[in-house]
Amino acid sequence: MPKKLRPQDITILLVRPRYPGNIGSTCRVLKNMGLTKLHLVRPSVLPTHPESLRLAVGAADLAKKAKVFGTLEEATQGLRYLIGTSRRTGKYRRDFVNLPELGTKLPIGQKVGILFGSEEKGLTNKELAVCHLVTTIPSNPDYPSLNLAQSVAVVAYQLRLLMQAGLPAIEGKTFELASVEEVEGMFQHLEKALSAIGFLEHKNAFHLMRTIRQLFGRTQMNDREVRIFRGICRQVLWATKKEPLSK
Amino acid sequence: MPKKLRPQDITILLVRPRYPGNIGSTCRVLKNMGLTKLHLVRPSVLPTHPESLRLAVGAADLAKKAKVFGTLEEATQGLRYLIGTSRRTGKYRRDFVNLPELGTKLPIGQKVGILFGSEEKGLTNKELAVCHLVTTIPSNPDYPSLNLAQSVAVVAYQLRLLMQAGLPAIEGKTFELASVEEVEGMFQHLEKALSAIGFLEHKNAFHLMRTIRQLFGRTQMNDREVRIFRGICRQVLWATKKEPLSK
Repeated sequence: MPKKLRPQDITILLVRPRYPGNIGSTCRVLKNMGLTKLHLVRPSVLPTHPESLRLAVGAADLAKKAKVFGTLEEATQGLRYLIGTSRRTGKYRRDFVNLPELGTKLPIGQKVGILFGSEEKGLTNKELAVCHLVTTIPSNPDYPSLNLAQSVAVVAYQLRLLMQAGLPAIEGKTFELASVEEVEGMFQHLEKALSAIGFLEHKNAFHLMRTIRQLFGRTQMNDREVRIFRGICRQVLWATKKEPLSK
Repeated sequence: MPKKLRPQDITILLVRPRYPGNIGSTCRVLKNMGLTKLHLVRPSVLPTHPESLRLAVGAADLAKKAKVFGTLEEATQGLRYLIGTSRRTGKYRRDFVNLPELGTKLPIGQKVGILFGSEEKGLTNKELAVCHLVTTIPSNPDYPSLNLAQSVAVVAYQLRLLMQAGLPAIEGKTFELASVEEVEGMFQHLEKALSAIGFLEHKNAFHLMRTIRQLFGRTQMNDREVRIFRGICRQVLWATKKEPLSK
């Protein structure tokens, strides 16, 4: 019996959306598909802008309760698994899934955030690096650039199917995932430790960290695993005399 | 080996679209999904209206070659299978399929038209009666009314998946379907014959004809079957002395 995806576990995040119409259209289609949680990171206007409300039509309630944040970090607090949407699948972005197969990767019963970038450039590399997974909407290679609200529509439709039909069972994915903040804290700890051993003096340090982030992102770490890795980092920092072990 | 749906076999029809923005957004998302054929029936403005072109962005080519018609009949000439989109699944509309299962109903290698109604009311009952099948986008029962261009986006995405992954094989569906005009001609012949025998004097004549249309629509008739039924109609009209048999 597949477990159903629950709407309350999904948060849609628009990162730096520029056109109020896209914010309103996003509200409308999210409500159409039974989704209710919308976070906006540095939007050009508030979701209650008249043009946004005009396009939200019957979903003004969603526009009014959408949350606005100054940073992506704040907007993702409490979420356990972040999925970026991007049509670029560069060589450093191996942990990606085609949208129709998204259900095979969603952790059951966890708080999931789905990120959409700005109309002009999409998500930046830095924003994508924070995501555990990147998903791509299948499209015409000659003209792959979808309108923001259209992208949300297609992704929300795919999520609706998963809410109705259920997720494919994933073995061993029923533990509690570590939160985004916990994993981020671990990465920062790790970066410090890797610096301490001189590993990040390499000219490809940024790419190396990205690869490490992707590797951990893919594994969907739980609390205990995060604690273990932070223990290793502490040990490294103590061994290189940068910090006392008691910290 | 499933047969792939080909983009050239799909025509999208917007019936009485009102907002130029929706026409342009439709062009953009059709091009995103690799579709190229757009027919407009009595649109409020031409697809090359400035607001339409603004939202078409890189799909102005599609807006420019979209065809405009005065009637649905003209717009569907040459098509063999018509699919209406509607969120109403009233008791007289039994031949409907949920969008995710659309692939199980598409006749292979045939010219298919997919109809979208106006922003306000969708397709009329009369327009739906001409369709062989009605498809519905799964949505929130509390707020099921999607924006027109968002509906097109979701349907076009589903078609893209079928173009990429292939259609499920349907047994016995490889014959040449009768054209929409041929079947329509048969229905008119049938109506004449049924009138001749007094069958359509019934107060539910409209509903009866709709049910008959649905039954035949569901069966996906080929040329030969249409000829057989027209033969029966001729015979009825001759037997009731309304027309000579030679006609």
